[in-house]
Amino acid sequence: MVTYAGITEAAALLKGKIIRTPLVYSPTFSAMTGAEVYLKLETLQKAGSFKVRGAAYRILSKRSSIGINGVIAASAGNHAQGVAVAAGIAGIPAVIVMPAWVSPSKQEATAGYGASIILKGSTLQESIDHAIDLAGPGGMTFIHPYDDEAIITGQGTVGLEILEDLPDPDMIIAPIGGGGLIAGIATAVKETHPRTRIIGVQASACPSAVSALRAGEPVTVESEPTVADGIRVTRTGMHTFPVIRDLVEEIVLVDDDDIVSAVFALLERKKVLAEGAGAAPLAALLSGKVPFKAGEKIVLVVGGGNVDSVLLEKILRKGLFEAGRLLQCIIELPEGPQSLPSLFSLLSRENGVIVRVEQERGSGDLPLHMVRVALEMEVRNRDHQERILAALEYEGYEVTPIRVPRYSFFEFSHTVGG
Amino acid sequence: MVTYAGITEAAALLKGKIIRTPLVYSPTFSAMTGAEVYLKLETLQKAGSFKVRGAAYRILSKRSSIGINGVIAASAGNHAQGVAVAAGIAGIPAVIVMPAWVSPSKQEATAGYGASIILKGSTLQESIDHAIDLAGPGGMTFIHPYDDEAIITGQGTVGLEILEDLPDPDMIIAPIGGGGLIAGIATAVKETHPRTRIIGVQASACPSAVSALRAGEPVTVESEPTVADGIRVTRTGMHTFPVIRDLVEEIVLVDDDDIVSAVFALLERKKVLAEGAGAAPLAALLSGKVPFKAGEKIVLVVGGGNVDSVLLEKILRKGLFEAGRLLQCIIELPEGPQSLPSLFSLLSRENGVIVRVEQERGSGDLPLHMVRVALEMEVRNRDHQERILAALEYEGYEVTPIRVPRYSFFEFSHTVGG
Repeated sequence: MVTYAGITEAAALLKGKIIRTPLVYSPTFSAMTGAEVYLKLETLQKAGSFKVRGAAYRILSKRSSIGINGVIAASAGNHAQGVAVAAGIAGIPAVIVMPAWVSPSKQEATAGYGASIILKGSTLQESIDHAIDLAGPGGMTFIHPYDDEAIITGQGTVGLEILEDLPDPDMIIAPIGGGGLIAGIATAVKETHPRTRIIGVQASACPSAVSALRAGEPVTVESEPTVADGIRVTRTGMHTFPVIRDLVEEIVLVDDDDIVSAVFALLERKKVLAEGAGAAPLAALLSGKVPFKAGEKIVLVVGGGNVDSVLLEKILRKGLFEAGRLLQCIIELPEGPQSLPSLFSLLSRENGVIVRVEQERGSGDLPLHMVRVALEMEVRNRDHQERILAALEYEGYEVTPIRVPRYSFFEFSHTVGG
Repeated sequence: MVTYAGITEAAALLKGKIIRTPLVYSPTFSAMTGAEVYLKLETLQKAGSFKVRGAAYRILSKRSSIGINGVIAASAGNHAQGVAVAAGIAGIPAVIVMPAWVSPSKQEATAGYGASIILKGSTLQESIDHAIDLAGPGGMTFIHPYDDEAIITGQGTVGLEILEDLPDPDMIIAPIGGGGLIAGIATAVKETHPRTRIIGVQASACPSAVSALRAGEPVTVESEPTVADGIRVTRTGMHTFPVIRDLVEEIVLVDDDDIVSAVFALLERKKVLAEGAGAAPLAALLSGKVPFKAGEKIVLVVGGGNVDSVLLEKILRKGLFEAGRLLQCIIELPEGPQSLPSLFSLLSRENGVIVRVEQERGSGDLPLHMVRVALEMEVRNRDHQERILAALEYEGYEVTPIRVPRYSFFEFSHTVGG
């Protein structure tokens, strides 16, 4: 059983071996919500997520049962890096099985922490099956990502640290994948703070814990791709389910648009790089799905920051666009030496910073004397967008704002041959 | 005079009004250098940089001398936001004069903290002159960004907090613009820890403090644009200079490539968004320009995180490329239905993730039966790049790797008409 006493033992065992992460106040998110908002920054943890806590406690507390061949795990993400680092702390070897499609940067990071990597499986489940095959009596010990009491106990140390820094939180919001993190936190917190509400967040693309609560037991759900891939776990754990059922007040679902906005807000307003799953609690709070009273102390558990840089580039663009800070529009105007200079002078007077220009000529739907110009501008906000569009229309330009952001303005077929 | 006693007073006055930022250990940067590396994360400070400390202490400690019209400052960056927030803490109005070219996002952030903004001046100096014109007896009080004893005293609280969290640091590395931050830290630290070395970092594009030390007094230097725009200050302060001369062991210069790599490393490895000036201390450490002994405790002061998102996009691309994680190459191959499919199968076997493809046909230098394909791939590292290039050459492809990253592959004139 996962117990408060076990979690305090875990905290003592892990002390000095993992990073004591800070709880940081956010004036901006507090002002936006009317609550007192604090962030528990597991992004600053070793390997960039809370996962090392559970993995390290699992390994260190049962060190004598692990043979010289060390541990094996399967993961496409944080558990891989968490186990790699935890094995390093314990001084034993680790093998990580990753699906063949896992991003080059996650392979590189995991290998960088000293683990051996096997690329195997076209789904995470196939990787897990392969890892379990390779484990076995006398061989490597399989480390489950969440459904293991020692893992849950280790993650619970997050809860103890929150209480050390903020003695009386009204609410703690944490992401739920398999449930290890929130089950640990709830066990740690409810023992001494029964009135602190524990709220879980899942991606609406994969509502496994919500479905489990409805069914009264863990069930396997269908899932869809989500930017919060770290909590795309299709079945709640056997060990985590009863804790969630008994100690978690509510589970909220958030969709990808809210999560992307939250990742962007954390980066732009608090300079914190969070992955989708890590930003999900802020997404839940900002989307208004979590009831609270003004002035309440709310802790958001920012569980990890392992976002692939290529994905981050996409999130930045989408975030800028959603925040009204990028204006894209298409303008048709007659060709001629003064056309573009006049247009650009107008935009300069309106303080739009042009960051991309594309031109299209001779398309089927365009008269031969006309040119189509696609523009991307950095602007202050949506009001500024409207002012620029109004100024363009006032000067007689035919303008079509682009409401869904595009990376390439014109049809692929226009520029790429057969 | 700036004194240790004054800084302890400032810390007491600011307590609860600013954020007590954490000092966080970095296993990755420690492993990379052999030192024990800690980050003082002023990125998590109110308004995203240390600037609010000095501004708030300046205002609060001389509150009675500031009239009902409040304060005025001129800045293109962190000082603007710092003064805006500090005025909010004191409950007085603030006007910020910004150069006309300042990015829309910095205008928006500063206005969001409650300040009134005046866009005036084609250089920062013109904005400053305008602000000083608007200030005056009985009117608004001008708040200098660094050359003011109260400002320096406020920034010094960073030094006291470092010592609270790490009792015996061997070295503290801090950025130097006008010198307010490092002068404050040095005064705070040397009083009780005379053997802790204080190292300053400037961008080689603007070596004002280095030149001042050589000249024996503040001198105005020529400067060039740099990604570390927060420390592009062309003249060291009258009040900061003697402190730097007497208490700072060494000033190191770093160039923009090193700074961009450091911004990228902080984001990717520690999930911390730092601006160029904030990442400069890491750039100095990683570039090997700061001498230290293995195992020494080194604190990097990450002074701020206010990077414009549009700039961040560029830094991400450059960082990915520098880290060997993006492979760009141009391949010429015969046109035909099997050409691209064969090429893509090969790349897939080599685990390169294709993120961009462009094609060029019918260019002047290209035979009519040939097509030129430009590819961008995400890869694990430089070894992976070499394996992919070798595989392409082995299969007979004519490949030209692109060693300097491009955003657009082909000549602008190819796709954009007159």
